[in-house]
Amino acid sequence: MSDIDRNRAARLMDEAGIDALVLFQPESFRYAVGAPAGVATMWGRAGGAIALVPAQSDATLAAIVSDHAAATVRSKASDVEVRTHRIWIDMLDVTGAKTVQEIGEAYRRSGTGGPRPETFDRSAVFDLLKDLLHERGLAGARLGVDLEFMPAADFDALKHRLPQVDWLDGSTVLRRMRAVKTPVEIERLRRASHAAEAGLEAMAQTIRPGVALPALSATWKAGAQAAAAKGGFSLSGHWDYISVGADLSDMAAVVASGDLIKADVGTLVDGYSSDGARTYTFGRPSGLALDVFKALETAFHAGLEQIRPGNSFGSVHAAMLQSMRKDGFSEYYRGHFGHAVGGSVGIEEWPFFSANNQEIIEPNMVVALEAPFYGQGLGALMIEDQFLVTGSGAECMNCLPRALVDVSNH
Amino acid sequence: MSDIDRNRAARLMDEAGIDALVLFQPESFRYAVGAPAGVATMWGRAGGAIALVPAQSDATLAAIVSDHAAATVRSKASDVEVRTHRIWIDMLDVTGAKTVQEIGEAYRRSGTGGPRPETFDRSAVFDLLKDLLHERGLAGARLGVDLEFMPAADFDALKHRLPQVDWLDGSTVLRRMRAVKTPVEIERLRRASHAAEAGLEAMAQTIRPGVALPALSATWKAGAQAAAAKGGFSLSGHWDYISVGADLSDMAAVVASGDLIKADVGTLVDGYSSDGARTYTFGRPSGLALDVFKALETAFHAGLEQIRPGNSFGSVHAAMLQSMRKDGFSEYYRGHFGHAVGGSVGIEEWPFFSANNQEIIEPNMVVALEAPFYGQGLGALMIEDQFLVTGSGAECMNCLPRALVDVSNH
Repeated sequence: MSDIDRNRAARLMDEAGIDALVLFQPESFRYAVGAPAGVATMWGRAGGAIALVPAQSDATLAAIVSDHAAATVRSKASDVEVRTHRIWIDMLDVTGAKTVQEIGEAYRRSGTGGPRPETFDRSAVFDLLKDLLHERGLAGARLGVDLEFMPAADFDALKHRLPQVDWLDGSTVLRRMRAVKTPVEIERLRRASHAAEAGLEAMAQTIRPGVALPALSATWKAGAQAAAAKGGFSLSGHWDYISVGADLSDMAAVVASGDLIKADVGTLVDGYSSDGARTYTFGRPSGLALDVFKALETAFHAGLEQIRPGNSFGSVHAAMLQSMRKDGFSEYYRGHFGHAVGGSVGIEEWPFFSANNQEIIEPNMVVALEAPFYGQGLGALMIEDQFLVTGSGAECMNCLPRALVDVSNH
Repeated sequence: MSDIDRNRAARLMDEAGIDALVLFQPESFRYAVGAPAGVATMWGRAGGAIALVPAQSDATLAAIVSDHAAATVRSKASDVEVRTHRIWIDMLDVTGAKTVQEIGEAYRRSGTGGPRPETFDRSAVFDLLKDLLHERGLAGARLGVDLEFMPAADFDALKHRLPQVDWLDGSTVLRRMRAVKTPVEIERLRRASHAAEAGLEAMAQTIRPGVALPALSATWKAGAQAAAAKGGFSLSGHWDYISVGADLSDMAAVVASGDLIKADVGTLVDGYSSDGARTYTFGRPSGLALDVFKALETAFHAGLEQIRPGNSFGSVHAAMLQSMRKDGFSEYYRGHFGHAVGGSVGIEEWPFFSANNQEIIEPNMVVALEAPFYGQGLGALMIEDQFLVTGSGAECMNCLPRALVDVSNH
């Protein structure tokens, strides 16, 4: 099932003067269709899979996928019209066959025999798109394409193959659609955030003098995976940026008394990545570290107060930078103090809490708010939490206290 | 250190009429420069990092990277000229600072204060490229770009910003460069292949009736990771396509007596992915399964005999398809019987062992040769090994026997 909000999509497309979105990026396909795009998209080229989202909200969604991925798409997204193209993998139902000759007969019955392309046949896929657009009355329409993904070489071929279409950049419409999450997406991000936090708890238990950064990373990962297994889900990925002590470039650093340990981590559930960070010390840190952390805490709360529907993303940045200035950080700067999270390519997603960003905060956005300080010679300090924007404010998706925790007291 | 073969690069660029390659894909950057492209490339957009490879083989390589990634690039690739652009992350050397005020003084000394872009400033990066090309006498040159990656939206902006340049698609030159591996790349692929095989050995030990597919996957992964740890290296990733029994779509299938268990797996070392597959049974499989496997074995050897310098990639496909036909598979087909492996985006890399492929096999290519059969109702069977092309033939990078192993005899 696709569970995108077709009415909101229709409104956004209408505002942009677009009749339909034609999406080529695998992550966008999965988002729009509600099923994976398949192995033919592994090279990041356009045409392995295509999703069509008409602006007309009652018009059926359509997907062009490989014959290899079609069964999964049909079973997971029965509401989507599916058309298939042949790829390099030869897969056949041979149920009941007892001999090699009977395999040949199964091929003939299935009609799937005959040559297959080296990988996939881009021209054949574009021809399927051409037919689909004709049938939908969109052959000369204004179509929004994900041009922030589409390789230039493929876009050139697409324009050549379908010259009547008025191709427009649909990237901003797609970004706005994706920024407001569906219940399924919110649940993935809850799970991902929960597993990442469980990993932090497990890691914190093992911080002591002599423990090296790679061991902390391994403990974090194991803790996150155990929490996922306990919760009945699996992680489709994970990442961690951990620093130990004053030298931020030392990836093999060993914990010493008084060190700052910063862990900025995330896990992925069905391709959706959480993002959160905590800072620990073993023993009392320097007075400067305490002053920096206090300023970050104050800035974090100043930003959090601005996260509510109707405010701009820029207002969060302004409040946090102002807070840092007030606390004496005369030159500190950040390009952004956080961002949306979700299932796209990068960990950090548009929109960003950046200077003068006029984009408006809306309910059901999921965002990560972050207040970091990277001081070579001192250490890294960071507070980051994930929030679901509600009707009136922000619900924190994390549970761990935000304080600078001295784990020598454990 | 970049360890690409500049003389071969020069020859390939000369043949293509290109004065230099300008590479935007993060994987291509890492390949050309010998250092990671940095976090500014996480969105798959052009401009987070750029590598310049002049055709003139004694001209210095150049890299445009974020100020955040620059230190790593300078330390890992001291032979490369580095220019930097500002990204959203504020990082500062505060060594010796005792107060917040002294942090402000450190900013002023460093000259790194002031506003930062939301993510990275594409226009500023393109301006750095413009300056670089001017200084190198390439401002009006014929430049090859990785247009199979470059997002159409970014290419449009690039052409607008640097209108004098004659932009050409450098993708084929880049593919040909990357297909012949350096010693460092070969070592990564050896390690990756070794870890993946160790995982298969560990997995095979645990195959017995009642064990489910996800458990086999977990055992494979743990075995691979343990082998890497023992070998003193870590895995940057891993993937597995395992099937158990007759229903290829059942991702929770449980081993029963007589089942086929196919494991097509790979691990990544520094981003370089191995690719290999083995098939197991628990107890005696059906006569048809044995017949299919025998045909795959014969086809595999027919293909392997063709892997030597000077032969075409197409000759391997022809030999294998002919072998299958001879063994009675009148309709069986495959788009390719294998491919190069390496550190690009997809697991499978160009060139492919595909029909009529005139691309020539060369020494120091690393390829995966595969003979698969996917029979719904029977099970999947597959033989796949990784080979280093030598001066006269192919050296197998795997050790496990290629036979259909009945693990009930263990």
